Amino acid sequence: MVVLGVDPGFGFSGYSIFNENRGIVILLECGLIRLKSSDSLATRIKIFYDHFLLLIERFSIEKINLETSFLYKNPQVFLKLGYLRGILYLIAAQKTIIIEEFTPKQIKLIITGSGSASKEQVARVLLKLFPRIQSFDKDDISDAVAIGLSGIWSKKN
Amino acid sequence: MVVLGVDPGFGFSGYSIFNENRGIVILLECGLIRLKSSDSLATRIKIFYDHFLLLIERFSIEKINLETSFLYKNPQVFLKLGYLRGILYLIAAQKTIIIEEFTPKQIKLIITGSGSASKEQVARVLLKLFPRIQSFDKDDISDAVAIGLSGIWSKKN
Repeated sequence: MVVLGVDPGFGFSGYSIFNENRGIVILLECGLIRLKSSDSLATRIKIFYDHFLLLIERFSIEKINLETSFLYKNPQVFLKLGYLRGILYLIAAQKTIIIEEFTPKQIKLIITGSGSASKEQVARVLLKLFPRIQSFDKDDISDAVAIGLSGIWSKKN
Repeated sequence: MVVLGVDPGFGFSGYSIFNENRGIVILLECGLIRLKSSDSLATRIKIFYDHFLLLIERFSIEKINLETSFLYKNPQVFLKLGYLRGILYLIAAQKTIIIEEFTPKQIKLIITGSGSASKEQVARVLLKLFPRIQSFDKDDISDAVAIGLSGIWSKKN
């Protein structure tokens, strides 16, 4: 099973790619995509689409995992986050792969055993699990790793 | 200039297609796309994408117009509306056509001359302008016609 975890955003999008085979979980790749604010909204959305389509084809991704978003601050920023999420749903349908979401609480519970764990605690657990990662440059990456690993460890599908 | 006006929604999406040539404005088509709630979110998004891509190619659309959305009720419904809007931005970038938004107030002002006009007043003006339309079956259609016509009448581009 090859799973892609994504934490989408118009500034930075974090992503992780996991392979699971008979209980052995390997983190194949994790990283960041940066969208330039100097590009138009439409251009940034197309770059996001092209990038993830390529990634999904190259790694033969079988499942996409996302974190469910909740409205915290600006509704217009929240709406535009939906633009990027919609792109991932489109790709899932185009490539007939599964797409599923977890709430932040579910992810914390799956990774640390506690739904009320802090972001830092989640990151610490991930660094222990995957010692080849020295540190996470940005929260977007550790979030994406947590999301992808949740997709591997949960038995939803 | 051929303009597509869209009022996207997961239940019904209204659309309108206008042609303007030397000041003569023709409403080529208006209608409704229905997405079935029995389909998965990803499937509905793909159907939406395929439908509008086809429409844009068939009519050689040069500009897409949308109404700016504001948060009124459920944030999760609002976020998912973003999924569909993002698809239209993607198509705009893929086909290198313009996409622009108007606020509800701007649309009312462009169509009726008053930014505080009622929905009914906007619909009455549209029926007078395009007498071949007997009535609007749904608000989604009259909204889409108002959005498309705003794209024609405004001199943004």
